[in-house]
Amino acid sequence: MEKITVSIGKSSYPITIASGLLTNLITFLPLEQKSTVMIVTNQTLAPIFLKEITQHLNKQGIKVNNVILPDGEKYKTWESINYIFNELLNNLHGRDTILIALGGGVIGDLTGFAAAIYQRGIKYIQIPTTFLAQVDAAIGGKTGVNHELGKNMIGAFHQPIAVIIDTDFLLSLSSRQFASGIAEVIKYAVIFDEQFFYWLEQNIDALISLNPQALEYCIRRCCELKANVISSDEKEIRGIRVLLNFGHTFGHAIEAYMGYGNWLHGEAIAVGMIMAARTAEHLKIFQSQHTNRIIALLQRAKLPVNGPIEMKATDYLPYMQRDKKVFSKKMHLVLPTKIGSAILHKSVSDKILVAAINECRIFTELKNNIQI
Amino acid sequence: MEKITVSIGKSSYPITIASGLLTNLITFLPLEQKSTVMIVTNQTLAPIFLKEITQHLNKQGIKVNNVILPDGEKYKTWESINYIFNELLNNLHGRDTILIALGGGVIGDLTGFAAAIYQRGIKYIQIPTTFLAQVDAAIGGKTGVNHELGKNMIGAFHQPIAVIIDTDFLLSLSSRQFASGIAEVIKYAVIFDEQFFYWLEQNIDALISLNPQALEYCIRRCCELKANVISSDEKEIRGIRVLLNFGHTFGHAIEAYMGYGNWLHGEAIAVGMIMAARTAEHLKIFQSQHTNRIIALLQRAKLPVNGPIEMKATDYLPYMQRDKKVFSKKMHLVLPTKIGSAILHKSVSDKILVAAINECRIFTELKNNIQI
Ligand SMILES: NC(=O)c1ccc[n+]([C@@H]2O[C@H](COP(=O)([O-])OP(=O)(O)OC[C@H]3O[C@@H](n4cnc5c(N)ncnc54)[C@H](O)[C@@H]3O)[C@@H](O)[C@H]2O)c1
Ligand SMILES: NC(=O)c1ccc[n+]([C@@H]2O[C@H](COP(=O)([O-])OP(=O)(O)OC[C@H]3O[C@@H](n4cnc5c(N)ncnc54)[C@H](O)[C@@H]3O)[C@@H](O)[C@H]2O)c1
Ligand SMILES: [Zn+2]
Ligand SMILES: [Zn+2]
Repeated sequence: MEKITVSIGKSSYPITIASGLLTNLITFLPLEQKSTVMIVTNQTLAPIFLKEITQHLNKQGIKVNNVILPDGEKYKTWESINYIFNELLNNLHGRDTILIALGGGVIGDLTGFAAAIYQRGIKYIQIPTTFLAQVDAAIGGKTGVNHELGKNMIGAFHQPIAVIIDTDFLLSLSSRQFASGIAEVIKYAVIFDEQFFYWLEQNIDALISLNPQALEYCIRRCCELKANVISSDEKEIRGIRVLLNFGHTFGHAIEAYMGYGNWLHGEAIAVGMIMAARTAEHLKIFQSQHTNRIIALLQRAKLPVNGPIEMKATDYLPYMQRDKKVFSKKMHLVLPTKIGSAILHKSVSDKILVAAINECRIFTELKNNIQI
Repeated sequence: MEKITVSIGKSSYPITIASGLLTNLITFLPLEQKSTVMIVTNQTLAPIFLKEITQHLNKQGIKVNNVILPDGEKYKTWESINYIFNELLNNLHGRDTILIALGGGVIGDLTGFAAAIYQRGIKYIQIPTTFLAQVDAAIGGKTGVNHELGKNMIGAFHQPIAVIIDTDFLLSLSSRQFASGIAEVIKYAVIFDEQFFYWLEQNIDALISLNPQALEYCIRRCCELKANVISSDEKEIRGIRVLLNFGHTFGHAIEAYMGYGNWLHGEAIAVGMIMAARTAEHLKIFQSQHTNRIIALLQRAKLPVNGPIEMKATDYLPYMQRDKKVFSKKMHLVLPTKIGSAILHKSVSDKILVAAINECRIFTELKNNIQI
């Protein structure tokens, strides 16, 4: 079992990682005997996990209600938030009710946001059930919903009081969903930790076969890296947290153009990282041999490294412009400088972007090691 | 001109109070030459004030958009928030856009909440135009909207970066709306400041006739009192801020039963304060001679001191129970102990509540000074 503490200002909360946590749930949840809890989950997960968890909690004298939302990114909307509020208000849930997010990033983002604004803020706990949520979405307090005019446009920073990561959840996850999470894992390694990248090269197969030790170590390292970032830059002001967007400016263009959910987030980010790496090559701040290492690792994880055939290079630009105009003050393009380190680049020309995207359009060849 | 600073944790913001501020607006707004601003106001106020303010700002090179909402408490809803988001996103407003709330408490609460959750939080400025908003709603960072199942149920704490109070706005305000604000002024005096209560007894007529000096002094004192409370208890955790709810548990019952907007907030609070005072008399912690002083002052301000004839005492209780269950952990009834001081009482019996409400049901007689 691994324990990590996220410290933000004066407050802090624990992340607990292990297999078999749920049979022992009560030991890990910061709940008291008479706590009142509302579990938020979806129609896919409720039949598998809800009954057991509810029984565990009931046995301890904890009052449990639940809200079961339809499954899917397209339900990460205000309507779902409002549905949660209806359930809370109809059941007279007060400010001392604690929400529990039981699900992937969608349920986590929704539940966290509902907690952020129900009666001006109540507590919540993350129990992430996808790999992507366990290594990324459940940590850091970014919460929110999509708006018809933009993804994640509405939200709040609101930290959970605990994150409980049980690797057993991953047993029922599809391999495609699992791979989507690996993309974010590789992202951490590229921008922050060469040694971890090396570890991934050694252990990617163990990870894919859900080896418990490999999983625990990998999740712990990702949580540590993210916790560090958040401790020093909770609200993405200082520019450290922004590095976590590596691959995302390109990736968002793919997700949006292809229609959310068709390309999984991690799949789009995988390609986005290569596009960012190619951009960095053009700017002569990154060497193609390193891009090759990233490509090789992504391919072993069964992740795409080429953009969708349907998308021309110029199809990316409007989305990237929009990202820039609407979401950041400047064109924030995170670019790698070597494996384990990245910077924020503020003005990449469209010409270079188009060239870099084109190199990942249909087939990414492993380039020869050209030393610059 | 009066200046007050609200200090919360490491950050602080100024409240500026004077007449004629708007002709000099630019001096008081923390905006830079190339700032981008979105003014949120309503259909009543836009024709009166919007053009002048926009011109002032444009002259300084500030880019100004606006959103004009329909007027009324019934539009303090998620739909209005979403309308603001549509305007922001359609016009590609980024995280550096500053919202300006130009209006009463409804516009202030809406704008503040939109700012709290647009892209996880952007800056906003309050320019309150009602007396109630100038002495209360615009200060303190409580923002939010109503839910069909409860008033102010959804929201966030989000402090503005500045509050600009121009007493000239009050010239166009109806006297009924003005009186509604006086109820909150009297509230401050009863719970915090006997001397201020005395000042009000001396100056209530000057206030009602909008004497500039009286207005400035009165608004300053209210802002100071509220700023002090907020500095030590921003999120209503320590129980000091909760004292500001004096009169509100009863008042909310009136507002909800009568249908929001039929009784103005301040009108309901005026009666609520008398009901709370009578409750305190029953508990022998407050003397009826002090209730009489409050009644006399409210009456001079043209505020009601009796509940609506339609409402039986038992009609209040379900709303008060609901307030208790849903909004606070305990039955928080704020009761005065003398003029200038109040406490939080945690368990008043229904019998006493009914008796106290009945005393304000149809006609509140000035009781004789019975010493307890
Ligand atoms: N808040 C953040 O910091 C952050 C970071 C990254 C991503 N996100 C958000 O997270 C979302 C993506 O998260 P996701 O990839 O977890 O998607 P998801 O929540 O949609 O889950 C993917 C699918 O797997 C199913 N599932 C979940 N757990 C399962 C299990 N144990 N067994 C079987 N099926 C299971 C879900 O029902 C769903 O169909 C996006 O909305 C993204 O914006 C947020
Ligand atoms: N956030 C807080 O701390 C806080 C505190 C108290 C009240 N509130 C909220 O404030 C709201 C009540 O505020 P309010 O009393 O200002 O009501 P309001 O905003 O509805 O304004 C009252 C009316 O006066 C009009 N008006 C405003 N300024 C005017 C002017 N200068 N000239 C002519 N007409 C003008 C408005 O258009 C409206 O019709 C409620 O929703 C209440 O919940 C919030
Ligand atoms: Zn991501
Ligand atoms: Zn009030």
